[in-house]
Amino acid sequence: MSKPLILISNDDGITSPGIRVLVEVMTSLGEVIVVAPDSPQSGMGHAITIGDTLRLTETDIFKDLGVEAHKCSGTPADCIKIAKHHLLKDRNPDLVVSGVNHGSNLAISVLYSGTMSAAIEGAIEGYPAIGFSLCDFSYKASFSHARASIKKIAQNVLDKGLNKGIALSVNIPPKQNEPLKGIKICRQANAHWEEEFDHRKDPYGRPYFWLQGNFVNNDHGEDTDVWAVDHNYISVVPCQYDLTAHQNISQLNEDWDL
Amino acid sequence: MSKPLILISNDDGITSPGIRVLVEVMTSLGEVIVVAPDSPQSGMGHAITIGDTLRLTETDIFKDLGVEAHKCSGTPADCIKIAKHHLLKDRNPDLVVSGVNHGSNLAISVLYSGTMSAAIEGAIEGYPAIGFSLCDFSYKASFSHARASIKKIAQNVLDKGLNKGIALSVNIPPKQNEPLKGIKICRQANAHWEEEFDHRKDPYGRPYFWLQGNFVNNDHGEDTDVWAVDHNYISVVPCQYDLTAHQNISQLNEDWDL
Repeated sequence: MSKPLILISNDDGITSPGIRVLVEVMTSLGEVIVVAPDSPQSGMGHAITIGDTLRLTETDIFKDLGVEAHKCSGTPADCIKIAKHHLLKDRNPDLVVSGVNHGSNLAISVLYSGTMSAAIEGAIEGYPAIGFSLCDFSYKASFSHARASIKKIAQNVLDKGLNKGIALSVNIPPKQNEPLKGIKICRQANAHWEEEFDHRKDPYGRPYFWLQGNFVNNDHGEDTDVWAVDHNYISVVPCQYDLTAHQNISQLNEDWDL
Repeated sequence: MSKPLILISNDDGITSPGIRVLVEVMTSLGEVIVVAPDSPQSGMGHAITIGDTLRLTETDIFKDLGVEAHKCSGTPADCIKIAKHHLLKDRNPDLVVSGVNHGSNLAISVLYSGTMSAAIEGAIEGYPAIGFSLCDFSYKASFSHARASIKKIAQNVLDKGLNKGIALSVNIPPKQNEPLKGIKICRQANAHWEEEFDHRKDPYGRPYFWLQGNFVNNDHGEDTDVWAVDHNYISVVPCQYDLTAHQNISQLNEDWDL
């Protein structure tokens, strides 16, 4: 039996330490191909490049691991599209994985996350897909405590598949003195970002702004991704890309005078 | 009683004809403020600007309508954030509207849509929000048949509100010889884009790509947004920003060996 084909992308860019961790772990599970952005794409949400051209360049960056890799000028979602429709063509990945992101993608952050947009794009193309995020923004963050669980989750998905239209969002607590307590299937916490804009003047006297945000969680449920990570569990949230609020359709039909 | 405050944005940029239509219609319903991108942002999905600065500049573009307007260097989601947290501060909009987009945002396209990201950002901030799209990509498209329905839908939302966490995605058929048949509350069609990459060489002999896509709908339900627009109805889809596939949580707990 041939080895499973695993397509890897991320949003921190192809040179980030997090994607190397993912490549190392996935080579123990199958044949790996990497298509990842040539520069950081954090916060890109599900952006795609439609008004501009895309570049795609093969790189030796993972030659030491025997892995074919390409860097792309586009967004994470572009990387998955061009991997499928230009590089792989008639070959179908058995798994699409994205990350490991340097920083959490908990609660509402999935919507803004380039990491998750690559995974969701994989699900849209019909492949089982997982986005991995480490809840530590440091470039030098330790991933050593996470490797075994990343492998276990990917193996579960390779063995058992995922329902159509689902991608998993996995958040891993930062490395602590005690080992991880385990893995929990969760819902997104109903948390939000409280934003501020840092208002500055440039050297020419013109105003500009930096977006700043504080993550605020008023959801005290013990079945959320935030609760899990706060208690040193890895959280796994099944995410869907159909945004229809189905339960709201009959209510609108009753309420509105159409 | 004071007039409702209506915040307007879009993704085609502040100079597009579609946003002017929305400003004209909304001034008949309330006090309007516009914060919109200074350049086209189509396909930006829910991108936000976190690694770069933002510019915000007041403009006279809607002075003829007596409307305050600001152009922003960021994405549609950035526009809503900076409007709320920098310009409006303690004032809360009664309604956030985005568009009118030049082109459809049907089915899966909501995920890639900058128009809908502004509306969804409004919903995240806790305001009733609507994204309007005209299913005609032409810059010179006629909006005349759409004005009465845009006003009716906005009035319904101002009168009756929306459930927390919901933004509406409204798609309007292109102008035809016969009048619109009405408004239907719908679900997103389970359609997809079949992508191709147009592979070219630049003048220096280096390869580059253009993303191209064909919209393919194999969903024959008569309750979908695609069906409604194809039959000359305006479609209204309630969209949610919680991406958790709640029905999948217990199944994963059963299937997986954690």
